[in-house]
Amino acid sequence: MDLWTLEKTGYDPESNLADGNRFLTANGYMGVRGTLSEAGREACPAVNLAGVYDRNGDKWREPVNAPHGLFLRAAFNGEIMALPERTSKRHSLCMDYRHGVFRRETDFGPVVLRSERIASLAQPHLLVERVALTFAESGTADITAGIRTDVWDINGPHLFDLHLKEGEPLACTAVTGEKGIQVAVAQAAARDFPAEERFFQNDTGVFRALRFPAEAGEIVTLTLFVAVFTGLDGSDPARAAEELVQEAKASDADSCFAANAAAWEGVWVRCAADIDGDDEGALALHASLYYLNSIAPRHTDRLSIPARGLSGQTYKGAVFWDSEIFLFPLFVHTQPEVARSLLRYRIDGLPGAREKAAEYGYRGAFYAWESQEGGREGCTDFNVVDVFTHRPVRTYFRDKQIHISADIAFAMAQYYEITGDLSLLEAGGAEVILECARFYLSRMSRRFDRAEADLWDVIGPDEYHERVSNNAFTNAMVRYCLKSALQLKEVFADRPEYLAALTKQLRYEKEWALLPEAVRALRGPRIRDGIVEQFDGYFELEDCTLDQVRSRLRDPREYWGGDHGVAGITQIIKQADVIALMALFPQDFTDEQIAANWAWYEPRTEHGSSLSACMYALTACRIGQPDRAWDLFMKTAAIDLVGGGKQWAGEIYIGGTHPASNGGAWMIAALGFAGLRIRGGVIELNPRLPKQIDRLRFRLTVNGAGYEVIVTHDGYVVQVV
Amino acid sequence: MDLWTLEKTGYDPESNLADGNRFLTANGYMGVRGTLSEAGREACPAVNLAGVYDRNGDKWREPVNAPHGLFLRAAFNGEIMALPERTSKRHSLCMDYRHGVFRRETDFGPVVLRSERIASLAQPHLLVERVALTFAESGTADITAGIRTDVWDINGPHLFDLHLKEGEPLACTAVTGEKGIQVAVAQAAARDFPAEERFFQNDTGVFRALRFPAEAGEIVTLTLFVAVFTGLDGSDPARAAEELVQEAKASDADSCFAANAAAWEGVWVRCAADIDGDDEGALALHASLYYLNSIAPRHTDRLSIPARGLSGQTYKGAVFWDSEIFLFPLFVHTQPEVARSLLRYRIDGLPGAREKAAEYGYRGAFYAWESQEGGREGCTDFNVVDVFTHRPVRTYFRDKQIHISADIAFAMAQYYEITGDLSLLEAGGAEVILECARFYLSRMSRRFDRAEADLWDVIGPDEYHERVSNNAFTNAMVRYCLKSALQLKEVFADRPEYLAALTKQLRYEKEWALLPEAVRALRGPRIRDGIVEQFDGYFELEDCTLDQVRSRLRDPREYWGGDHGVAGITQIIKQADVIALMALFPQDFTDEQIAANWAWYEPRTEHGSSLSACMYALTACRIGQPDRAWDLFMKTAAIDLVGGGKQWAGEIYIGGTHPASNGGAWMIAALGFAGLRIRGGVIELNPRLPKQIDRLRFRLTVNGAGYEVIVTHDGYVVQVV
Repeated sequence: MDLWTLEKTGYDPESNLADGNRFLTANGYMGVRGTLSEAGREACPAVNLAGVYDRNGDKWREPVNAPHGLFLRAAFNGEIMALPERTSKRHSLCMDYRHGVFRRETDFGPVVLRSERIASLAQPHLLVERVALTFAESGTADITAGIRTDVWDINGPHLFDLHLKEGEPLACTAVTGEKGIQVAVAQAAARDFPAEERFFQNDTGVFRALRFPAEAGEIVTLTLFVAVFTGLDGSDPARAAEELVQEAKASDADSCFAANAAAWEGVWVRCAADIDGDDEGALALHASLYYLNSIAPRHTDRLSIPARGLSGQTYKGAVFWDSEIFLFPLFVHTQPEVARSLLRYRIDGLPGAREKAAEYGYRGAFYAWESQEGGREGCTDFNVVDVFTHRPVRTYFRDKQIHISADIAFAMAQYYEITGDLSLLEAGGAEVILECARFYLSRMSRRFDRAEADLWDVIGPDEYHERVSNNAFTNAMVRYCLKSALQLKEVFADRPEYLAALTKQLRYEKEWALLPEAVRALRGPRIRDGIVEQFDGYFELEDCTLDQVRSRLRDPREYWGGDHGVAGITQIIKQADVIALMALFPQDFTDEQIAANWAWYEPRTEHGSSLSACMYALTACRIGQPDRAWDLFMKTAAIDLVGGGKQWAGEIYIGGTHPASNGGAWMIAALGFAGLRIRGGVIELNPRLPKQIDRLRFRLTVNGAGYEVIVTHDGYVVQVV
Repeated sequence: MDLWTLEKTGYDPESNLADGNRFLTANGYMGVRGTLSEAGREACPAVNLAGVYDRNGDKWREPVNAPHGLFLRAAFNGEIMALPERTSKRHSLCMDYRHGVFRRETDFGPVVLRSERIASLAQPHLLVERVALTFAESGTADITAGIRTDVWDINGPHLFDLHLKEGEPLACTAVTGEKGIQVAVAQAAARDFPAEERFFQNDTGVFRALRFPAEAGEIVTLTLFVAVFTGLDGSDPARAAEELVQEAKASDADSCFAANAAAWEGVWVRCAADIDGDDEGALALHASLYYLNSIAPRHTDRLSIPARGLSGQTYKGAVFWDSEIFLFPLFVHTQPEVARSLLRYRIDGLPGAREKAAEYGYRGAFYAWESQEGGREGCTDFNVVDVFTHRPVRTYFRDKQIHISADIAFAMAQYYEITGDLSLLEAGGAEVILECARFYLSRMSRRFDRAEADLWDVIGPDEYHERVSNNAFTNAMVRYCLKSALQLKEVFADRPEYLAALTKQLRYEKEWALLPEAVRALRGPRIRDGIVEQFDGYFELEDCTLDQVRSRLRDPREYWGGDHGVAGITQIIKQADVIALMALFPQDFTDEQIAANWAWYEPRTEHGSSLSACMYALTACRIGQPDRAWDLFMKTAAIDLVGGGKQWAGEIYIGGTHPASNGGAWMIAALGFAGLRIRGGVIELNPRLPKQIDRLRFRLTVNGAGYEVIVTHDGYVVQVV
């Protein structure tokens, strides 16, 4: 079994959506959905751009898909050699996770078509697809290749004022509707065979048409070099795109593939992780690391990662708390510069977070629940469509999921704790923590006749229960945020002038005075028989089973949450909530406490979010039950390899890759199975290997130095690499 | 036109439900739905008992319907003379509002059946129905009369362990399922004709069968005397019932009818109100006064009035804020002893209100939203059924409609202000006010960095918007409650020892200290361009028309409210809310303010509750627009005369009579058109007669003395009667 490769044979048009995710090639700048070269819009192809957003009318703002420059379609003796029009004799897809290469092979009978595609990790603007045709018969062959402008969008169109250029290279420019951002795509083609070439354009794009005689047994190769630039990259994206494809063509395909492979090897030096003993687990972990690393921002130092990566426009291409809680750990432990980029993105978003707080009548920084460019809130008041009335449903994710600010402050503080690097706090991180704390000071309230403070009317990680009070997770995260603000005094003990200046700039005197009392006053959860109550009144909700709740559905696509959903009025929860709290603050709980809460909450958890299994697995390791964690690890790590997962919330498509699960897989392996914890630059390990694993290896970067950790059932080794 | 009589001709089985309400006979102890003597369960007959509740299993607790002792069915020559089995040549119903007599006349051809029915206002346990048969042909007549035990219930059955007694009088006893309360019914019959009489019983009850020869032109009369007693009335209700019917039969029907008429005349001496100039208006006002007075508790001094009166089991027979805000004004101005009974009921409910507050983690008294016996909360967490999924919908009436306690405190304070009678405050009223204030002290909260206090997460009068914050109406009522608590110090200035004892008993020292600051801190509403914002964020909701909202319904029975309803997410409101505030506190607003808010809110109001039009009418009078108030007055006053109104909320039946509208009609006439206000025993009038009214007359009781007020367009007269 190849531990780095996913293979799939046979053709099934029903799996186009899932395959588009599974065979994704991406490089942080863009993601190319794993659809076939010849695919039309019905297969949902996309070249999804990171950090470029557009809004059409009053539809949801979403990331822009560029014109698709990898379109290619072949014919032989006038017959189309393309799926789904022609039945194939044999068809296989392959994803090479090691180097991010998507390969395809289809035997149409007279012609066998093989291709390999990369989104170059060495050159973020470059896509390369090499297509080889092997002829079983002699005849006349045609290849059409070009840039498709009939872009698939969920809430589009986004591209207007198209200009198409025929000739070598093909080129296309357009501007986005909302802000007039230029998007430029160029395509150059190299071939090892003579052909008549003509150029044309129509409603669907600009193309080259090649015609050539083919002989039985002959193999011809055509390589498409595609470049994408936008107005956010420079002043003349069209020229940059044309220049890049000409350069790439000149340097040839092999060197492009080699440079990409070398770049990937550079990533693996930093963050490889391997499992010996279970091949499926090893492959799933590799897949997770591929999916997550392929969408990590490396071309910029201030971008984060959307909840469905670069696999499409799902969830509006927005950045959620996933980034800080589920993606950040991998990066901060292996590639701190990427972790830093995720947090720089939040520092840049501070003005937007202040605006959002003010919009709701609060002070400080209330971060966007679904953060788009510049921290702009992409979340609306209506995020689900009712399957019976087809009306949008009011949800409270935007206004009540207040733990987001604390999650960000948590990651800021963790970045410093793990890396010992003060520069991020100085570069705005401290300000973020203080402003988040200020938000909570204005959000917390005290009853008139009480000393305790409450956080009323929130949503915790378990989104099925909207508008609850004193969510245990939220209160704990907020308390940590308030403490982190206070601890800045110690962190900057050597530089009091820095904090004094910040205090003055933020007019923070009153907040410094309130913080200690706020930490004391904020309520802890009710605990009954050792079980932490998820929120006030949770124990009084109907206690029923997942199956009972499921049996009440009248439509399989019904949304389970909110007061109208089947789960929202019961003790059934969507995802880890109290258990997420215990996973993030293990030091605050004994093994017995965690075990008791695990036993209570796990059967009541739908795991309806990819953020759930990871938290249960981490806590299972903590209480010495890594074998229970193993299944959750596999569920987490294999999520995008297998495909599937929830595709719908009400009538809204929510499919795509699952970066949080990808990050979660690493967390289970490193933080769970190996029990990794870094404090003050010291690597601590407390292994809890499940029986399926003989040996676990993973790389780390600590204080700028690379390490490899090797854990077996007999012990562990940490060595410099 | 008879200004005291409703007449209806023709038979339509579809209107059985509506007629049951329109032709209600009631006397405060019980209400007999206006169904025909021969009606079976399908016509929804009921003898609805005030204050007797029962719960069957986990269904909703509701008031008990007694076995129906007025059943009567005739036949002639073997043919049934009853509706709907036999088509009538002529059929008419008539309600005499002056004396509470329901008359019926049906010409079946060979037989004309005439009846008149009273629920005696002179003897609360007594029902009398006199039935006359006029024969057009000679032949053999049969009459079956008896006590039907196949009682119509919404959430029944409630009666078990039935014992039936044949013979004169017929008798039936049963016990309720939950608490074993005895319910006894007896029926005696007097007749002016000889007949064979035999007795029998079956699954549907116990009966007498009369057979007699009839001659053409002959008229025979049978009078049924029915008595109802329960275990709450005494130790031997069965015996009491039998004795009463025998006494009544001995004293004869005429004297029963005469005593009832005299009792009604006694009511009219106290509270008659008449309109000259518009006959329909006059009739509608009489109807309203009849419906409300017929269900007023007079047989006891500690009962209130359910939201649908004694017209059935709708709304669980529960007492709402309607009692204090919409019914109380008529009674406190005309029959203070009834007003006192309504409030005594609340004083008795104080322990239940304390329990409810504690259940939610608060202190003081949080009154039941749907109050049943002893103030017990009848409201559940699920009060609507979704029409698409048929699942119960979580509503927040029970937990968030916190203004109820302030409404009760308001009425307590008003009772003292209007009557000058301190005894009710001494008898528990002061304690109620203090405990309600204590509840709000524990319900109000302050953000950590602010001096202002909020009332988060409430529902105001407009129930379509659930879980809002700083509802203007609620905050104003709460502030009045807090002030009323403080003002008790002045009220009892002469008796400091009383308040000292109460303070000690209630351990109220801390609360006395907090009250002044609480009054200062509690937030007022945001005001934009003179418009009072109904709650925080209301102005940001979608601004659309009622028609737009209605057009979004996918099912006419859909519930409009909550986040899932078509109105709940827009500015469209169910009923007066800010305008209710202005109607209750007119002195706090200028005419200009009221006019501006009226113009803003009225087009946004569905008037989907019978509590709405009255508030708009009162404020229209206040701003000198009584002609606009007239239509609202007619809508309010004629509601039960016309029948109709909303019959369904989701899949829940909510029909019945509308005591709050009945009381509202009087409020519009007296408080609106006449501008009545009583302060310190002084009658103030500020008439705003609409053009439809030439002369308005109504009775008052002030300081134990009766007055008649006569208002014309030329002025007004107040005279002692």
